[in-house]
Amino acid sequence: MAAGTVNPGIVFLVGAGPGDPGLITVRGRKLIESADAIVYDALANRDLLPSDAKVTGHPELYDVGKRGGDSRSVSQDEINELLVRLARDGKRVVRLKGGDPFVFGRGSEEAQALNDASVAFEVVPGVTAGIAAPAYAGIPVTHRGIATSVTFVTGHEDPGKPTTQTDWSAFMEGRRTRRSHKGR
Amino acid sequence: MAAGTVNPGIVFLVGAGPGDPGLITVRGRKLIESADAIVYDALANRDLLPSDAKVTGHPELYDVGKRGGDSRSVSQDEINELLVRLARDGKRVVRLKGGDPFVFGRGSEEAQALNDASVAFEVVPGVTAGIAAPAYAGIPVTHRGIATSVTFVTGHEDPGKPTTQTDWSAFMEGRRTRRSHKGR
Repeated sequence: MAAGTVNPGIVFLVGAGPGDPGLITVRGRKLIESADAIVYDALANRDLLPSDAKVTGHPELYDVGKRGGDSRSVSQDEINELLVRLARDGKRVVRLKGGDPFVFGRGSEEAQALNDASVAFEVVPGVTAGIAAPAYAGIPVTHRGIATSVTFVTGHEDPGKPTTQTDWSAFMEGRRTRRSHKGR
Repeated sequence: MAAGTVNPGIVFLVGAGPGDPGLITVRGRKLIESADAIVYDALANRDLLPSDAKVTGHPELYDVGKRGGDSRSVSQDEINELLVRLARDGKRVVRLKGGDPFVFGRGSEEAQALNDASVAFEVVPGVTAGIAAPAYAGIPVTHRGIATSVTFVTGHEDPGKPTTQTDWSAFMEGRRTRRSHKGR
């Protein structure tokens, strides 16, 4: 960072991968090692956090894990505010999220909040659980001649919606394998 | 490996990630460092290969990159045979594939060939380019309230098929956001 820079704070939205600590990216792990503060999810493996952080106080650790039905949960607005505040304090912040930050991880909402607050940020993609979990069970999500596409659908829509946005029957149509080409 | 084991050969089907060498997984990079042989794709970043391998001859490097219209391409059958042969020679083999091995990477065909040949193998998921490439461009593939699902479709079906298996119009139906819930 150049001398005289007023605010070198930055937030890295890092995908922690599907659970196995070996499945974080090399870049994600390096960023954790050089972070001043780590804001982590319930879905991110605790083994990814620096083991001596709780003793030394560095990096600062913030558990903002949301769990269904947990009234003590930290709200998304509070998480956004925390990220902005830490970065404005000049810290290198890692926002560690289970899977990939942009696949049902609400990473895009955090990115938007950071952008609105003029805070520098970077997205570091991760291995998404929707692909890795079936792979560990021996199930490929695509296979030449059998599956030419794969769809990921959230099982947990915004509870504030009046009704579902997901048209399940249409997905079934899309998934049906065509055996012959119908003209027009 | 236990003493007396006749054939400790194994193949790791490793996702190399979307291009940035920092986006391979920690586990994937460790496996590359301990490999006897690496069989790599055109889509896997060359910077992921051990830099002194071409001088020392270890690990052995096999470039099996397939490129559209390249008549010198190695066929999928030849790749499968190579993997089986190397493992039967007792080698630790890394099969390094761009993106994720199970997302349009034909990793499942290689897994099947290894299984048929009774060769031990393990899948190590990677960051899929279909999510990471838009992320690097600032595009989240899901966003609460806007996109509750995301579909990945191959742009390159098996040329041996008489016709497409992909029902494009049905995908459009699935993608349409529903504003209200229709009864029944």
